[in-house]
Amino acid sequence: MERVEKLKKIGKKAGIDAFLVNSDKNMGYFAGFSALAIERFAGIIIPVETSAPIVVVPKLEEEKAKKYSAFKRIRSYGDSENPAMLLSQMVKELRLEKAVFGVEGALAFKFYKMLVEYSPKVRIEDASTFFSQLRSIKSDEEMKKMEKAASIVAEGMKAGIDFIKPGINELAISFQIEKTIKENGGESVPFCIVLSGSNSALPHGETSNRKVRKKDVVLMDVGAVYGGYYADVTRTVFVGEATKKHKKIYEIVAKAQEAAIKTVRPNVKAEDVDRAARKVIEDAGYGEYFTHRTGHGLGLEVHEEPYIAPGNKTVLKPDMTFTIEPGIYLTGKFGVRIEDDVAVSTSKVKPLSNLSKELLVI
Amino acid sequence: MERVEKLKKIGKKAGIDAFLVNSDKNMGYFAGFSALAIERFAGIIIPVETSAPIVVVPKLEEEKAKKYSAFKRIRSYGDSENPAMLLSQMVKELRLEKAVFGVEGALAFKFYKMLVEYSPKVRIEDASTFFSQLRSIKSDEEMKKMEKAASIVAEGMKAGIDFIKPGINELAISFQIEKTIKENGGESVPFCIVLSGSNSALPHGETSNRKVRKKDVVLMDVGAVYGGYYADVTRTVFVGEATKKHKKIYEIVAKAQEAAIKTVRPNVKAEDVDRAARKVIEDAGYGEYFTHRTGHGLGLEVHEEPYIAPGNKTVLKPDMTFTIEPGIYLTGKFGVRIEDDVAVSTSKVKPLSNLSKELLVI
Repeated sequence: MERVEKLKKIGKKAGIDAFLVNSDKNMGYFAGFSALAIERFAGIIIPVETSAPIVVVPKLEEEKAKKYSAFKRIRSYGDSENPAMLLSQMVKELRLEKAVFGVEGALAFKFYKMLVEYSPKVRIEDASTFFSQLRSIKSDEEMKKMEKAASIVAEGMKAGIDFIKPGINELAISFQIEKTIKENGGESVPFCIVLSGSNSALPHGETSNRKVRKKDVVLMDVGAVYGGYYADVTRTVFVGEATKKHKKIYEIVAKAQEAAIKTVRPNVKAEDVDRAARKVIEDAGYGEYFTHRTGHGLGLEVHEEPYIAPGNKTVLKPDMTFTIEPGIYLTGKFGVRIEDDVAVSTSKVKPLSNLSKELLVI
Repeated sequence: MERVEKLKKIGKKAGIDAFLVNSDKNMGYFAGFSALAIERFAGIIIPVETSAPIVVVPKLEEEKAKKYSAFKRIRSYGDSENPAMLLSQMVKELRLEKAVFGVEGALAFKFYKMLVEYSPKVRIEDASTFFSQLRSIKSDEEMKKMEKAASIVAEGMKAGIDFIKPGINELAISFQIEKTIKENGGESVPFCIVLSGSNSALPHGETSNRKVRKKDVVLMDVGAVYGGYYADVTRTVFVGEATKKHKKIYEIVAKAQEAAIKTVRPNVKAEDVDRAARKVIEDAGYGEYFTHRTGHGLGLEVHEEPYIAPGNKTVLKPDMTFTIEPGIYLTGKFGVRIEDDVAVSTSKVKPLSNLSKELLVI
């Protein structure tokens, strides 16, 4: 309920009379229950003033809503009923006929139309920034889930590293990691990218049948979900031996990551963390080979606020969580990226993922 | 270009002056190129009358659009520009200031707002049914991709079946199938569900660590993508031996599937195909254990029109493609589902997936 109270407070300040929340992530966040609204409409109307929120779901989701929703006012509609009519009834009951509604930016046009169809005087505004502002600050409970997710990914990564040897292909390594994550309680593995040899120089490369060879670089970028929350970790290792060049690049990336991590604390801007990593790589003469942002927020989604990117003036606050993942990509040769998940604590940085980042030759 | 001409024709008839297409699937379908519009706006304006379509993309997608888009009028905007302004310029140039725009039902509210912000007199309508109507009829080229996708899934399924033996867990079987599909050219494996023992009775069950035992039922539901197109096939097999009850249920489901497949031809309604499968299962006394629709359309998406479901009066036409997948689920005991992909030909049914459905004891 604390989350809803915070949202109401933000709404009041911003001149919003009610919120409509309908993505499965945000419904889960506020109500502890979600219904996937793709074919049929499902959502929660949260008035900013007195009334309690109302959950609107298709009939077939009603039982689930009754069982799990933190909000107990639940209305449902059958397949032969028009959800637009039901929404307009809700609007009238809640005296929101002339209200300003804050909705999610991703709200589907067909659902937007249902909301305004019989309530022509409501005004609709994109309230995405308010939702992401709230979600960017994690509670203790959320933080525990993120730590657990990160420790599960670490197990997978270790299993992947143990499995690497010349002759094994990228897909087999990827499966080994995924299998280990699932055996350790990971709910899903949305990505498990293994890139070897010159493939490692492709920041958006895809896992292939390529067999690992001696002197290869192997880059593994792995995401897993636990309790609904993401971890996202990357390690780069060397097979048989690491050349001088390999060592040099690895060291620069590790230093860049370390520099960025050291910058993290309350009241620092997101762009300053990016700057810290970028400076190390630029000073070493590889600025043009670091082709992406330094990190992204992490939580119920794998990409959310705060983005650790040039120009992002978002001020870091305690309990924000994000990745730090600088990289250098030498096209046609090899790439190195080192990625960890961190949280802002009250005074400094708190690592979420704990996995050695010493240069590793297998 | 044929697709665009068909869309224009439909639009003219329906009183639509221009379409805005912005999902990656529909952009790909009409322009042979797509930009994922999640953070930033990307889309194609298709005027129904004379003018050529215009592609609007963020700067960083411009090169890709130039290289791959079938439409050569391309406009881009930088990170410091407002795409809403660019859209209003397009609207003016195309003389669409008072036009009726047909958009996708899933168009995000934030993008809808960009379209209307500086063009207050345009009218926006949900044109989803027109897009799905077009996409439900497959060209020869699309059909070939779907056949290939189905043959790749068949290879995966065979590998999975060969891999099953007492002591092997569900996840390991699933990985074996996925690996085989990828080695055979499958672009992705969006789902690869393996359910053994009483898990097979859960229509929405998830692959687990459960080890396969003697006398188990193993149900495998596998989806794969080739050339952007889906195949979706399910097989149920028996380990060590099939009991009398196993055989009985398998036979009913196989008969139900066969009956539904035989019904498929042009001018039959979707609900009649569903009815044919349902009748066999009801007549055998298991109606209440067949808890889902008989099938769903298949193509660029795994669920699309036509839905083979009770009450769907959609009339089947040549070159529509969908699944036929009846099932019986005996909670706490076991479940059987048999799923194949079919196309409507000019006079009857054409199978897309070819894989034995004889009762198989491993």
